[in-house]
Amino acid sequence: MSPTGALPASGRLHARAKEAGALSATPMSGAGPLQPLDVVVTRGDLVESTHRVHAAVVDADGALLDAVRDPAMVVWWRSCAKPFQVMPLLRSGGLDALDWGVDELALACASHGGEPEHVAVAARMLQSLGLEEGDLACGPHEPLASRGARLLREAGQRPSRLHNNCSGKHSAMLARARQLGIPTTGYEQVAHRVQQDCRRAVAEWTGVAGEALGVGVDGCGVSVFALPLANMALSYARLARAAGQGDDASRRVVSAMTGQPFLVGGTDRFDTLVMEAGGGNVICKIGAEGVHTFAIVDRGIGFALKVEDGSPRAQFPAVLALLDAYDALPRPLPDPLADFLRRPVRNTRGEQVGLIAVA
Amino acid sequence: MSPTGALPASGRLHARAKEAGALSATPMSGAGPLQPLDVVVTRGDLVESTHRVHAAVVDADGALLDAVRDPAMVVWWRSCAKPFQVMPLLRSGGLDALDWGVDELALACASHGGEPEHVAVAARMLQSLGLEEGDLACGPHEPLASRGARLLREAGQRPSRLHNNCSGKHSAMLARARQLGIPTTGYEQVAHRVQQDCRRAVAEWTGVAGEALGVGVDGCGVSVFALPLANMALSYARLARAAGQGDDASRRVVSAMTGQPFLVGGTDRFDTLVMEAGGGNVICKIGAEGVHTFAIVDRGIGFALKVEDGSPRAQFPAVLALLDAYDALPRPLPDPLADFLRRPVRNTRGEQVGLIAVA
Repeated sequence: MSPTGALPASGRLHARAKEAGALSATPMSGAGPLQPLDVVVTRGDLVESTHRVHAAVVDADGALLDAVRDPAMVVWWRSCAKPFQVMPLLRSGGLDALDWGVDELALACASHGGEPEHVAVAARMLQSLGLEEGDLACGPHEPLASRGARLLREAGQRPSRLHNNCSGKHSAMLARARQLGIPTTGYEQVAHRVQQDCRRAVAEWTGVAGEALGVGVDGCGVSVFALPLANMALSYARLARAAGQGDDASRRVVSAMTGQPFLVGGTDRFDTLVMEAGGGNVICKIGAEGVHTFAIVDRGIGFALKVEDGSPRAQFPAVLALLDAYDALPRPLPDPLADFLRRPVRNTRGEQVGLIAVA
Repeated sequence: MSPTGALPASGRLHARAKEAGALSATPMSGAGPLQPLDVVVTRGDLVESTHRVHAAVVDADGALLDAVRDPAMVVWWRSCAKPFQVMPLLRSGGLDALDWGVDELALACASHGGEPEHVAVAARMLQSLGLEEGDLACGPHEPLASRGARLLREAGQRPSRLHNNCSGKHSAMLARARQLGIPTTGYEQVAHRVQQDCRRAVAEWTGVAGEALGVGVDGCGVSVFALPLANMALSYARLARAAGQGDDASRRVVSAMTGQPFLVGGTDRFDTLVMEAGGGNVICKIGAEGVHTFAIVDRGIGFALKVEDGSPRAQFPAVLALLDAYDALPRPLPDPLADFLRRPVRNTRGEQVGLIAVA
């Protein structure tokens, strides 16, 4: 199945992205070992379900080091774009002017678990702007971390917009509107200056011209961008290299994410566990519908993957397999993280009846 | 990608199933119109995720009328086997001996929503056996119907084994053990006479020899069977034809399912809505991990499908597309069911940002 045939709209976009300088789809290394990287769910000795994974591994110069299925597949980048959506505020000194530190920066890059610590940082960000929960354009949703959901339930409370996993990003977007001296109302809309700045930052880092980026509406109401996997990977590789070369904004994003992994995810959340295990040398960011982007910092290698069917259960073992193939994580993996590599399937009696793992 | 390559264990089983008399994988009709039947999730004008669907349409003589991708794919049948798992009890007069009627039979065939009406029937079945909740081998889980979950929460109660969607099937299995005069303890185990009888019934109806059926442990702890999609479809076609020809057990299963669709599913549950819309002429049964089996009763046509990645969100539009291709449902679909054909994707603000539908 050619992705162009299966994804007509994406095919068009891909063509546009190519004109705009998208990367070659042919890996430099030929890279057999990563082909394929499908994730299977077994029950007994039979494969019950199969998840197809597409991925690109790219260095900071744009060389495609490895490819899984279609590394040029164009998909929505979802929350993986967050480290670049905060760049306009960060580069222009807006963060410092507000006296925001690593916690605020980590939360701006986060898909957090809606735990009390996350909510407190988001509330503090809004308060320092003289704004409140109602100014956030994102809707409320159940906390993503089970600890967050449990604590909220025990407190007899309902989820607020502060519990939205994107509340840090939204607070930083409100800060950007304030910094520009423009109305905060409508900051989430595609045509708003705040979103246009984000689009420019995403274009700059991914190497896809702004007009070639697909633009849609994300789960939290702001702009979401569509681009080839290889360009997603490129942006994280560039971020890692720039951080190593002393670029201030890049260094601060990388060190906020690796230094405050709990704020970027939360209790038992995958990205948090990966960055803890990575010892400061891995940045890792989940997106909805099975997209993930991550990098090995000191080697300037970026990775992007998409589970074709959007299933989160499949992206975790695939991310770990890619990082393992590049020796970026300890072997064996520390315990809570190892569970994501080979996740037991249990029945309602608690018996293990199967496994979710790379095929 | 050949399914044999992707699914080594299934490939082996498939070979065994073929020896055992599995159906031809070449459709009689050539049936272009149903190829392919993938379900896509769009966001804006771009496909975000794609679900690959495999399906077989078979008549009661075993002719393959239509095929989508691999109609010979071997997968776990999960809860779609329920109408045949109750056959040993039904055919031997065990249901009548207990004075059980259509409600009990419908619940035995159900993946019910754990609503008070379902729980009441299951409790009555156990009571008539002199047994209680603790005798059920299935574990507790949150009610599948959101009404069931809400009512349970409002009552301040936790889910019991009676709320397990399989509690009707389990109660009927306990009844079978009682009828045979053997201990009920361990009735869920593969080697127990109750499970062996189920296996024989599944073999008889699907046309796959008992020893060629894959056997594993289902989500509720009892035996689960693996077989080719085409043989799943065949069994439902045979059930429909046998019901039309006056076979008593078949007629009773079909009329319990079509006559009590609420007990087979529940409020806003897919199978219930399909059978209501089908006006007594469609039987429809969901299984976990994206498997579905259904039939048009008066024409004796059976259908089986599997979403390759196991996603439930994709099986609903695919089932509706297949039934529509065979003119089995009203056009347009009645309102609550139409929502399953083209399901809006909404963001946390409640805005529609995409759609789940057949490509």
